[in-house]
Amino acid sequence: MFQGQPEFFQWWEQRRAAHDYDVTVVGLDRLTGWQFDPETGNVRHHSGRFFSVEGLEVFTDHGQTTTWSQPIIVQPEVGILGILVTRIDGVPHYLMQAKMEPGNVNLLQLSPTVQATRSNYTGIHRGRTVPYLDQFVAPRPGRVLFDALQSEQGSWFLAKRNRNIIVEVDADLPVLPDFRWLSMSEIQQLLRVDNLVNMDARTVLSGLPRQTASGNPDAGAVHTTAELLSWFTEAKARYVLQRQVIRLSAVKNWVRSAERISHEQGRYFDVIGVDVVAGSREVSRWSQPMLAPTSQGVIAFLVKQISGTLHVLVQARTDAGTRDVVEMAATVNCSPANHLHLPPERRPRFLDEVMSAPPERLLIDVVLSEEGGRFYAAENRYRVVEVPEDFPTDVPEDFTWMTIAQLANLLRYGNHVAVCARSLLSCIS
Amino acid sequence: MFQGQPEFFQWWEQRRAAHDYDVTVVGLDRLTGWQFDPETGNVRHHSGRFFSVEGLEVFTDHGQTTTWSQPIIVQPEVGILGILVTRIDGVPHYLMQAKMEPGNVNLLQLSPTVQATRSNYTGIHRGRTVPYLDQFVAPRPGRVLFDALQSEQGSWFLAKRNRNIIVEVDADLPVLPDFRWLSMSEIQQLLRVDNLVNMDARTVLSGLPRQTASGNPDAGAVHTTAELLSWFTEAKARYVLQRQVIRLSAVKNWVRSAERISHEQGRYFDVIGVDVVAGSREVSRWSQPMLAPTSQGVIAFLVKQISGTLHVLVQARTDAGTRDVVEMAATVNCSPANHLHLPPERRPRFLDEVMSAPPERLLIDVVLSEEGGRFYAAENRYRVVEVPEDFPTDVPEDFTWMTIAQLANLLRYGNHVAVCARSLLSCIS
Repeated sequence: MFQGQPEFFQWWEQRRAAHDYDVTVVGLDRLTGWQFDPETGNVRHHSGRFFSVEGLEVFTDHGQTTTWSQPIIVQPEVGILGILVTRIDGVPHYLMQAKMEPGNVNLLQLSPTVQATRSNYTGIHRGRTVPYLDQFVAPRPGRVLFDALQSEQGSWFLAKRNRNIIVEVDADLPVLPDFRWLSMSEIQQLLRVDNLVNMDARTVLSGLPRQTASGNPDAGAVHTTAELLSWFTEAKARYVLQRQVIRLSAVKNWVRSAERISHEQGRYFDVIGVDVVAGSREVSRWSQPMLAPTSQGVIAFLVKQISGTLHVLVQARTDAGTRDVVEMAATVNCSPANHLHLPPERRPRFLDEVMSAPPERLLIDVVLSEEGGRFYAAENRYRVVEVPEDFPTDVPEDFTWMTIAQLANLLRYGNHVAVCARSLLSCIS
Repeated sequence: MFQGQPEFFQWWEQRRAAHDYDVTVVGLDRLTGWQFDPETGNVRHHSGRFFSVEGLEVFTDHGQTTTWSQPIIVQPEVGILGILVTRIDGVPHYLMQAKMEPGNVNLLQLSPTVQATRSNYTGIHRGRTVPYLDQFVAPRPGRVLFDALQSEQGSWFLAKRNRNIIVEVDADLPVLPDFRWLSMSEIQQLLRVDNLVNMDARTVLSGLPRQTASGNPDAGAVHTTAELLSWFTEAKARYVLQRQVIRLSAVKNWVRSAERISHEQGRYFDVIGVDVVAGSREVSRWSQPMLAPTSQGVIAFLVKQISGTLHVLVQARTDAGTRDVVEMAATVNCSPANHLHLPPERRPRFLDEVMSAPPERLLIDVVLSEEGGRFYAAENRYRVVEVPEDFPTDVPEDFTWMTIAQLANLLRYGNHVAVCARSLLSCIS
């Protein structure tokens, strides 16, 4: 366990103690307010709101598997993930929240200032007001540094997006007990602790501007941004992604019991139910379905110094729920256990390089969780692996090298960079 | 008529004379290979390819009209619109094509080097090879300057996009008779001639990089790009655009005869049929449906010098077929005749300022056509109107001021700038 920042961890343990929060895994058939739709088999709330678990039939010519069907979370509404920033003694500090969520490993994770579904702020939860939400909703007193609609996990969500927003405010804002101003160097240390900084915080933080000395994001890069955009356009034009929402009961190779929905080979994920009793959340007791991956995943960048500038190897990737054919993803983003049945040549590209990297090449190696409001104990090993000098600069057509500044610049425009790559980028200081 | 460039117009008249091209408007029921689907009433090709005219039911809280249904062109495939560029005596020249299309006013218009539907290059037309197409398809010998998927008319097309691409090549490429290298100053002169430079050429040319002296697109701008992106994200989050493809026969307030499909009040557009006999196109004879607007439209930017830098007034606009809720559009984009039945306060914002502008404030005033492959004689008056100094800098929330360099930069990333704004931007030198 991380030994620095004793004051932070003192506050952290206080927050943990202050909350009464209990999560129990239960059968899907025992969720209050949720039901299997008798006609479709879809899992949905009786109000028709929040989200639903439905079926998706996919055809794509991008990747090893061309047609499949799977359960997927459908949640068309756009939530807000927001972080406030202020200067304290001239140094930017970020208002982070100690927040419990049912799917979180350790329950409590460091979260953005605000994490609000549209239901949160339109009152469907009929719960307490979300603190600081008024700082993000226009007209707002602060200054917006970053504001984009960003995608979430395409394997699990159908084209889901959230609004990621960073607003600079005056420091004299009252700080509630669950909140704390932290500097970027403090956050970077905490990002090296397993399962501490949550996914929502990571994706928002990835939006922070990254300046090169010259102000030109192409400085020192082997490809111009025009070339990178062309590589991206080429991939969107090359591949086809067709899909259709189907009845959950029509999904092939998945089995449903009263308890859960699982893949017949035990791969990918289960859809399970949880009962939550909480003292500090918007409402104090609720049930919900969650998606629980069956094994730990790997999200990794290969990085390389090219002509003296660090480049990351970015993948043009298609998932079932990807909005626009491909997104710019991490070099590797998979759960190795899901590919063990395949011959080595059909396993994910560069997975070996990531898994067998010697310790001295691991610039980052930490286990972090995906979003705890929909995913139950969804852990990924996040790695940044520096490859040797003789690693080829020429890469397969689905991959390209770009600098950190270029990736961060593309990310500003929304709909370019996948959540895995954003999440990992936030760990690179 | 424009008097300059006699050599160009000599070539132009030669090209006109070289082609045998005849277009006849015919009833929809007389189109060879096309039919009204007996179940849906949709207009479609017997092969199921090319495109179809279907119905669309729309709900949006953005704009004066919240629910309607209309005919719409459905063509999910992505075509290529490409222009080659080379330096002649150090000056960039663009390879433009004299191309006839059935919907073109004057039939012949100045077009991009390549204008290819996916059907063109996958051989569904079973026609002749598209010249220079190999210069755009990877791996290509030249250098890509611009490459993005860009939207087309959202009132007429359902989420249609084409790949806009500019490639720099060596000057020693053979120039076929229908093609000619033109400098930007020559093209800019030709853009002031009514119905000469076609829409496809305009949208591709709008992708040319625009540099400020400092290389920073935010130089001299009243808003940073971060603020503009936030304004755009805000609009996407504020409004809802829901739609559903329906049977063409289920569209309300439109009437179908054997000849055509029309709005019951004669507004918007008709769907008509044409027979084409051509000597120089990929195939020499074909029939197709086309969309024929019932009146001339207006596409205009209000522009203003703010602190010594020219700014354009950009609108966040939602059309029936807009891919992602809103796009950055021209200040005004409408057909005035479609709004005459409305009280003045419900007519499009800033239309009066555009229509009643005195001649000395008209920086650009030209009539140009929309794409002649799908739209029949679809003319718009393109205007750039410089407003007086006392025109408010504070504008309604659906509008924002930005510089030309900022708009051109946003355009590079695709899916930001609507075709009306791109088309007009290409006319601003």
